[in-house]
Amino acid sequence: KQVVLLPGDGIGKEVMESAKLVLNTVATEYGHRFAFHEHAIGGDAIDRYGNPLPDDTLKACQQAEAVLLGSVGGKKWDNLPANKRPEKGLLGIRKQLGLFANLRPIKSFPALEHVSPLKQEVISGSDILIIRELTGGLYFGQPSERRENGQAAVDTLYYQRYEIERIVDKAFQSARKRRKHLTSVDKANVLESSRLWREVVEEKRQQYPDVTVDHLLVDAAAMKLVTSPDQFDVMVTENLFGDILSDEASVLTGSLGMLPSASVRSDGVGLYEPVHGSAPDIAGRGMANPIGMILSAAMMLRHSFNMEEEAAEIESAVNDTLNEGYHTADLNREGGKLVGTAEMTEAVIENIT
Amino acid sequence: KQVVLLPGDGIGKEVMESAKLVLNTVATEYGHRFAFHEHAIGGDAIDRYGNPLPDDTLKACQQAEAVLLGSVGGKKWDNLPANKRPEKGLLGIRKQLGLFANLRPIKSFPALEHVSPLKQEVISGSDILIIRELTGGLYFGQPSERRENGQAAVDTLYYQRYEIERIVDKAFQSARKRRKHLTSVDKANVLESSRLWREVVEEKRQQYPDVTVDHLLVDAAAMKLVTSPDQFDVMVTENLFGDILSDEASVLTGSLGMLPSASVRSDGVGLYEPVHGSAPDIAGRGMANPIGMILSAAMMLRHSFNMEEEAAEIESAVNDTLNEGYHTADLNREGGKLVGTAEMTEAVIENIT
Ligand SMILES: CC(C)[C@H](C(=O)O)[C@@H](O)C(=O)O
Ligand SMILES: CC(C)[C@H](C(=O)O)[C@@H](O)C(=O)O
Repeated sequence: KQVVLLPGDGIGKEVMESAKLVLNTVATEYGHRFAFHEHAIGGDAIDRYGNPLPDDTLKACQQAEAVLLGSVGGKKWDNLPANKRPEKGLLGIRKQLGLFANLRPIKSFPALEHVSPLKQEVISGSDILIIRELTGGLYFGQPSERRENGQAAVDTLYYQRYEIERIVDKAFQSARKRRKHLTSVDKANVLESSRLWREVVEEKRQQYPDVTVDHLLVDAAAMKLVTSPDQFDVMVTENLFGDILSDEASVLTGSLGMLPSASVRSDGVGLYEPVHGSAPDIAGRGMANPIGMILSAAMMLRHSFNMEEEAAEIESAVNDTLNEGYHTADLNREGGKLVGTAEMTEAVIENIT
Repeated sequence: KQVVLLPGDGIGKEVMESAKLVLNTVATEYGHRFAFHEHAIGGDAIDRYGNPLPDDTLKACQQAEAVLLGSVGGKKWDNLPANKRPEKGLLGIRKQLGLFANLRPIKSFPALEHVSPLKQEVISGSDILIIRELTGGLYFGQPSERRENGQAAVDTLYYQRYEIERIVDKAFQSARKRRKHLTSVDKANVLESSRLWREVVEEKRQQYPDVTVDHLLVDAAAMKLVTSPDQFDVMVTENLFGDILSDEASVLTGSLGMLPSASVRSDGVGLYEPVHGSAPDIAGRGMANPIGMILSAAMMLRHSFNMEEEAAEIESAVNDTLNEGYHTADLNREGGKLVGTAEMTEAVIENIT
């Protein structure tokens, strides 16, 4: 299996090491072979090649079966012009590879429920999968430019029906494998694109009669995520709403550092990355939480390589490790065993073998 | 003082009665005269006149010094075409009256901190003012239409510099009267309109050197509202981001029914309404929480009529009433005195006189 590794910036490099170690363990245990090809992206690529997404990196990703990404960005590159910034590398890869479906599972770990900013009775039992459309909408719509001598600016929210259909299909299929409930989020009382979105959902639901569906306005969804996160199963929404809601949801459990994500297309090719950022403040100190990256590697095994058993093995090893009391400094947990990146990775590997 | 009352739908009618009683009490105590003119809006206006914003209503609002609105909407009208729906009345009034600044104060009441979905140590001491731009952006940008034979849809996010300047000025001025910190929220790493927004904030801050400023991306803001709501003072943002973030923020204290809002323009004319919706499920049962509406009336006294003392009197009466243990059913509070709309209003009035 050909896997491109893009460690990127800050703690990205450190947690990528953890993913490699875990994948090598799985390879040994199950008799697989993963070939890793490392390339530059983001600020690191700007420093080395003057480009957040070098051609060489893009080409490698286009040939890979899966891409693992650490994290990109940092203050150092914040003042560069928009098209030279680390994030451009990320947006470019998503678009160029056609990775239209961003999967963001948010699940409260029993061992960590008390670190949530929410009361335990509110967060307990929550298990949400947010599916965000990733290659359309305001992120890519044209025109996006200055007008009237720079005294005005315009961005464009544009969706074609087929773009909505494929993400809605993905969402229904995902709901089928879970608790069979889908919440579609839009702003149909204001936006024409949302009304098209809602029409597509209404049409598609005929094909998935076993899945229950409701529509929620994005403002109401932002409220309900806080007041009753346990009421959601799968949520599907357009690019920008998904950006906001999935980040809001990612802090509900109090363990952002634990969360993985996948950005996939229909043939199984995907890019996998932890939800957390590059955390320049703790970079290089060996204290980053590697679990988000390790669980992203598990998602890769499941979605790109169809290795369900291996993925589940990693996930249960992580669970066991948390239950043994291991935690990194970000988890704000009292008692237990406070460890760094390397020991945490070691502990997970112990639980795999 | 000429005040137009738009009770609207559901519990809107009931809480409007409370506002009238409280304002009449203030009038007697302080020797003012308020002339109330009642008009139809929303679903109620659709039923009676076939139009969510009848000309007669619009004209009355255009002549008023202030407008008090109950709430609009309900399942009954959900399947009407977009331009005939209750919300159109609300959007129409905002735009026609040029009410560009939506002020949403969110403050945790000590007597109610335990009803928050957040842990007490997270929510305690929070006191945020969200200022949302209300007449621009995706809500009103053109084109907003179907394309390619209905197989695609487009909406337009458009801002002119002067629209950003006036809302940013309002935000700096508001911050000056509070704790002198402003957080400007945008998505400048993706949107051209956000880059213009950020430029304007950077320019304007020169005129307000006593106010500290930071910029936050909308996805990060959605996270930080949950993890550290007490870190915000004034937040300013464009229309749709403001819609989402202010609703997210409104549930943090657990007492949505308590929250007021104001939509104002530069000359002091404004529209005041509670944050809660029309709550059809409890409408007509005399159990709605009138405090959001009563505090909206207080905002009217402050912002449209410059009656700071009278506004503060209402606010402290509400505080006293809560401290006496009065609460309505929505507050999920144990012990104390569970009351309906009328008794709650009576208790607040007792504390004014
Ligand atoms: C870096 C940024 C452009 C990106 C986005 O908004 O998509 C990020 O916030 C994310 O969610 O992956
Ligand atoms: C009813 C709707 C159009 C409106 C909006 O989105 O502005 C509402 O959500 C609000 O925030 O007042």
